[in-house]
Amino acid sequence: MKNGVQGIAVIGIGLIGGSIIRDLKQIPNNRYQIYGVHDDPSALYAKEKGLIAEVLTYDTLFSHDISLVIIASPISTISNVAKTLKSAYLKSNQRTTKILVIDVASVKNHIAKTFATLSDDTIQFVATHPMAGTEFSGLDHARLNLFRGKPWIVTPHKNNNDNAIALAKNFIHLLGGRFKELDPATHDTYAAAVSHSTILLSNYIFEFLSSNYPESLDLAGSGFDSTTRLASGNPELHASIMHDNAETIDSILDGFAVFLREKRSAATLPKEYFAANKFKRDEWLSKKTIVNDAKKQK
Amino acid sequence: MKNGVQGIAVIGIGLIGGSIIRDLKQIPNNRYQIYGVHDDPSALYAKEKGLIAEVLTYDTLFSHDISLVIIASPISTISNVAKTLKSAYLKSNQRTTKILVIDVASVKNHIAKTFATLSDDTIQFVATHPMAGTEFSGLDHARLNLFRGKPWIVTPHKNNNDNAIALAKNFIHLLGGRFKELDPATHDTYAAAVSHSTILLSNYIFEFLSSNYPESLDLAGSGFDSTTRLASGNPELHASIMHDNAETIDSILDGFAVFLREKRSAATLPKEYFAANKFKRDEWLSKKTIVNDAKKQK
Repeated sequence: MKNGVQGIAVIGIGLIGGSIIRDLKQIPNNRYQIYGVHDDPSALYAKEKGLIAEVLTYDTLFSHDISLVIIASPISTISNVAKTLKSAYLKSNQRTTKILVIDVASVKNHIAKTFATLSDDTIQFVATHPMAGTEFSGLDHARLNLFRGKPWIVTPHKNNNDNAIALAKNFIHLLGGRFKELDPATHDTYAAAVSHSTILLSNYIFEFLSSNYPESLDLAGSGFDSTTRLASGNPELHASIMHDNAETIDSILDGFAVFLREKRSAATLPKEYFAANKFKRDEWLSKKTIVNDAKKQK
Repeated sequence: MKNGVQGIAVIGIGLIGGSIIRDLKQIPNNRYQIYGVHDDPSALYAKEKGLIAEVLTYDTLFSHDISLVIIASPISTISNVAKTLKSAYLKSNQRTTKILVIDVASVKNHIAKTFATLSDDTIQFVATHPMAGTEFSGLDHARLNLFRGKPWIVTPHKNNNDNAIALAKNFIHLLGGRFKELDPATHDTYAAAVSHSTILLSNYIFEFLSSNYPESLDLAGSGFDSTTRLASGNPELHASIMHDNAETIDSILDGFAVFLREKRSAATLPKEYFAANKFKRDEWLSKKTIVNDAKKQK
């Protein structure tokens, strides 16, 4: 580390990558020098906006005191970016510096498998997933404290060493995230349940209601807005998630279709039914809020 | 109207009734005198909080220059409140003052039928529905401008006269709402589509996911929060809506269950599918926003 400066490369500078950079830059007395890579179209715009110091080629990347690389590009590109990084590292003269590479994609099983084949003692690829986002995408929507109080999952594979996981954990805490370790397949099931299936159901509810009851849209208020919010999300991201975690998502949606089919008339639902859901959900919400508040106070 | 003072009675002073009163009280130079009724438990609390001038019995109500009564009590009580009002009016000595009574319930067909039997030349019962609310209930959550820019539907019945509908329209505009006229049955279908069915689906999604994937709740973020927000709503209100509009809601939910059953794997959804939904939804959202902005500028 020259003059105490730590080089960090961010590949894919959209909502997530950009929010990470914004957080890093506002850490008091930081010595981070943040770089982009030349074949990433978002890097030029980030340079223009003054978010990164320089746009480097992969060949020169590791001669810039890089110790951390964050892959925040679209899911479908992650394996190729990781392989390119590995071969650039092998060709470089900097093999004495230990490198941590993390990704931030929403689906982990495939990526953790690729990362296992690429990791060795000097370069460690760690698969991670910050459970944070908005329905907007792109650098212009990047914002400070996006990760604060939010779960940020790390899914170690068999070739990760403890040191790399500890470094990833430190980085997550630096951004205010709640570190949690899960195996990749378990992560994908949990994420399918509380995130991926709600993305799909939000889309299906919007598609079904807006196609079958188009005149009613004029009456739609804040309830409809919330329930269908995820249908305004990033199409490319959502299609990638569906593709990469289809099996688990399909099985949850099949289960939900059976559940719906077995439901009796709405007239049979007493207020106790709604009260039980409200109680359970408000409990979840208050736990989430307590965790967020605790983090904010730090 | 004595000294230019206009008496308004509000029966049921919770989120909606309380928000109406808050709006009325902040209108510059208003001469409104707002009353509650003795058998409404929320009236005492509203009096304590200084939101209403006095709590009256039904016997004395119409001797207080009342020209407008707003029934904002739970759906299941509305018919009885309306009948009590009618007989109190008939017994009073104020039958020369014309009275407008409106309700604000989410389901209109049953209520409009009752209102038709009660309306005559001197007392008009008009069924209305402001499409506004929050997941919170009760007077403590009442707030200013809740109705501003939101649709507020009026569903006339065969015994309503034009003057009563015009007065209801004026009142809605006074609070910044978007007046819209629909027949009661059409209202109930539209509301079932964009409101009642999303309340039920939000509850079902929350129930299904939290019961079948309880460990995953710890990972749930803002997407899950939006999609299931309505499951934290007012249980009594939601049970009443389900009960009163069950037939239409059931038919929409049945349609959605068939729609889900016919869906192929999530893996087959291209980004164009999500982009089409996003385009259509963002268009809806921008129209809604334009209308809200236009109202705010007035």
